[in-house]
Amino acid sequence: MKENTEGLTAKKEEDTAKWYEEVCLKSELAEFSPVKGTMIIRPRGYFIWETIQEYFNKNIIEKTNCENAYFPLFIPESFFKKEAEHAKGFQPEVAWIDSKLTSPGERLAIRPTSETIIYDSYSRWIRSYKDLPLRINQWANVVRWETETTKLLIRSREFLWQEGHCVYETEKECDKETFQYIQLYKKLCEELLALPVLVGKKTEKEKFAGAKYTLAIEAFMPDGKALQCGTSHNLGQGFAKSFGIEFIGKDEKKHLPWQNSWGLSTRLIGATVMMHSDNKGLVLPPKIAKNQIVIIPILFDKTKSKILKQAEKISKQLSKFAPILDDREEYSPGWKFSEWELKGIPLRIEIGPKDLEKESITIVKRNTGEKSQLKIKEIKTKIPEILEEIQNELFSVAKKFLESNIIEVKNWNELIKTINEKKMAKTIWCGNGKCEEEIKEKTGGATSRCIPLDSKKIYGNCPNCRKPAKTKIYFSKSY
Amino acid sequence: MKENTEGLTAKKEEDTAKWYEEVCLKSELAEFSPVKGTMIIRPRGYFIWETIQEYFNKNIIEKTNCENAYFPLFIPESFFKKEAEHAKGFQPEVAWIDSKLTSPGERLAIRPTSETIIYDSYSRWIRSYKDLPLRINQWANVVRWETETTKLLIRSREFLWQEGHCVYETEKECDKETFQYIQLYKKLCEELLALPVLVGKKTEKEKFAGAKYTLAIEAFMPDGKALQCGTSHNLGQGFAKSFGIEFIGKDEKKHLPWQNSWGLSTRLIGATVMMHSDNKGLVLPPKIAKNQIVIIPILFDKTKSKILKQAEKISKQLSKFAPILDDREEYSPGWKFSEWELKGIPLRIEIGPKDLEKESITIVKRNTGEKSQLKIKEIKTKIPEILEEIQNELFSVAKKFLESNIIEVKNWNELIKTINEKKMAKTIWCGNGKCEEEIKEKTGGATSRCIPLDSKKIYGNCPNCRKPAKTKIYFSKSY
Repeated sequence: MKENTEGLTAKKEEDTAKWYEEVCLKSELAEFSPVKGTMIIRPRGYFIWETIQEYFNKNIIEKTNCENAYFPLFIPESFFKKEAEHAKGFQPEVAWIDSKLTSPGERLAIRPTSETIIYDSYSRWIRSYKDLPLRINQWANVVRWETETTKLLIRSREFLWQEGHCVYETEKECDKETFQYIQLYKKLCEELLALPVLVGKKTEKEKFAGAKYTLAIEAFMPDGKALQCGTSHNLGQGFAKSFGIEFIGKDEKKHLPWQNSWGLSTRLIGATVMMHSDNKGLVLPPKIAKNQIVIIPILFDKTKSKILKQAEKISKQLSKFAPILDDREEYSPGWKFSEWELKGIPLRIEIGPKDLEKESITIVKRNTGEKSQLKIKEIKTKIPEILEEIQNELFSVAKKFLESNIIEVKNWNELIKTINEKKMAKTIWCGNGKCEEEIKEKTGGATSRCIPLDSKKIYGNCPNCRKPAKTKIYFSKSY
Repeated sequence: MKENTEGLTAKKEEDTAKWYEEVCLKSELAEFSPVKGTMIIRPRGYFIWETIQEYFNKNIIEKTNCENAYFPLFIPESFFKKEAEHAKGFQPEVAWIDSKLTSPGERLAIRPTSETIIYDSYSRWIRSYKDLPLRINQWANVVRWETETTKLLIRSREFLWQEGHCVYETEKECDKETFQYIQLYKKLCEELLALPVLVGKKTEKEKFAGAKYTLAIEAFMPDGKALQCGTSHNLGQGFAKSFGIEFIGKDEKKHLPWQNSWGLSTRLIGATVMMHSDNKGLVLPPKIAKNQIVIIPILFDKTKSKILKQAEKISKQLSKFAPILDDREEYSPGWKFSEWELKGIPLRIEIGPKDLEKESITIVKRNTGEKSQLKIKEIKTKIPEILEEIQNELFSVAKKFLESNIIEVKNWNELIKTINEKKMAKTIWCGNGKCEEEIKEKTGGATSRCIPLDSKKIYGNCPNCRKPAKTKIYFSKSY
């Protein structure tokens, strides 16, 4: 029988970057493509994206009366230039198509985001207050010509995402829903991915190019870096002005509408994988695992046929969890244990001669390694409970991790110490962009992550510039 | 009250092209984008695509043990060149990205199809017969720089599609499944879209660039042109050779595997719309209509509140058909009838004072205009039956249309007459590519559509070149 030598070589706590890459590659979630900067999302990884899409369509798109549509991959250069801030923000990372194709016409960009091409349509579709609110979402690939190193599922030149684009009659509605969408993102992360996130407002410096303000969800990764996992932008009336979106109000006069846009991407898969996985390989919350169970019969000559029969019976009983029945005889049980731990199957069922005698099975939870016995007759009720338990345990471990890594700091010394210890500093802050830049330089790269939404009245001075503080804020290193 | 002046101006039987464009635009399925050659798929159109995807994932992907994945949008030039026929076939319509981005590296194409980038991965993933069969499907956008006029949902420089890519140990399996996939496509067209299609083999001249043979489904449109709606290619071992895909067989020797690829696109939406719609606007099979029912209360002052209450009650009872309750008072019932006929709602329910008295509703089928009464208590059982009836009627009308437009011809005179009458000629043929080209020229553009799969032994001579015939074949004008 073959030995399993396919395991991870790097350790999560020692070299998180290498460990993470190994987890993605060896669990067959994703891999590098021969086209520099791009990735291949393999079936095991793509299944997670499909599960996110399904949850999203049901719990976010339908529930908020939004509709899916599709806009072109190409964006004329003149559209980009219409909203000055937006153009400036995206210019450096736009990929253009060969101008021989479009000559003598204008250059075409491959979409890095679709505000401009969508709002051009909105200017034709919106006439009256009766056309509002307009809520449209697009599932699409986007291209940003990153120069930083590719990180599977986290940073690549092409990725998959959704982008929602809504138009409202009033500022109040727009504000309300910009906040609603970021809260729905948080709920998706927590409920589906067992991924706790912070919600807050980005600083002026970090907000989306062209937005009035940006809300974000931020996860905190095991290597002490924050990872922005989704954003919701209140775009104000700037794009409406640039693209000529106007509506006749109830007062029969022309008005500029208010807009927001919100997006999350395949990066969420990366965040989830990095958060939960361990030195044995991938750990997945059961809700996003294609196969939630693996059944491994322990085969000896005498009892083989009985055990196989039992394994098949159990496999059928649990069919809604898409169990894998691994009855290959050329591999040892130990090899198989490692294999499926590496690939992140949430629950393992073993059936050996002793289990057969006792009319029970042995179960092993992937997240904790905890082993226990279960009577055959209890399977139908207990297994769903155990899978839910795994989902909940992953969330609470991750939540504790996040909470224990946020350090409320009172002065500069505590701030720098927190950053050096690879934690996230919660501090008060003056609100000034130059001071924010200074903090980044002096800490060797810690950036503002977000301003918590529950900010109450603030007393005290900014730990860096000593001017009166205006808000609370999180600072940390980040992806 | 406003008059509805939004109807179609062109007639299906007079100017099919203009009529079709008006149907797409006015029913808000799709529209032209400001980027030449590309289109916007609006929510009403995108819903149809989502319904096709759902059917496809459930009935084709899952049932054939295929899995979804995602490969990069960009393809290195050298990959294209590896399979000579393939490169030659796609070269003219490939869009490249600006070479400043990739210099000094090689040029990158925007995928027109993904055989090459996927098979490069397969050469790394496949080692042994145990890795086979490998079946992967991708949902993606593709770009082909067409120079012909854009036709909404039928021909555009970017469209959405699925492409399946399978690898097999033996030629026999590969053949079997190449046929299986085209038959599953046919089933999807018939069951879901009520769209009858012909299945057959493409000639050498018309087959996919790089394939051993191509199977296709062909629909026949109301203006007398065939429309290719999906293809399944047996790729033989050519790509395997070019990309170095090899496996160790049970005999412990190296072998080249056999491959197929198969795809269908958003063009299917266009085919369905053109087939079923009429001079009042869009006609959709109920299975792909987002809203299968519209309820229009006929409001008079006296009975208004009772009728509205009744309409709401019925709307709730029929909630699984996503009914629209159109209770707007600023539009007349007649205006609303036209509006929802234009937008293709399969079934209209009217509730007026007389209906209320008789405890009934009036129903009008969009496809036939047929009007009838239905007792309130019968709604729950009868409405699903009527929707199914509409679905079936659309299919049988379309099937009769197809059958009555196929003319079995015996000689050249009959062939040319059939083509001139905008019908499809079923003929015997010599099998020679030059003769095929001659027929195209002499008929003013009729191309071979496909060779029926049930071809028996053929007697007689080719109607063009008079050489002994080898197969039956369909010829017609086409999109």
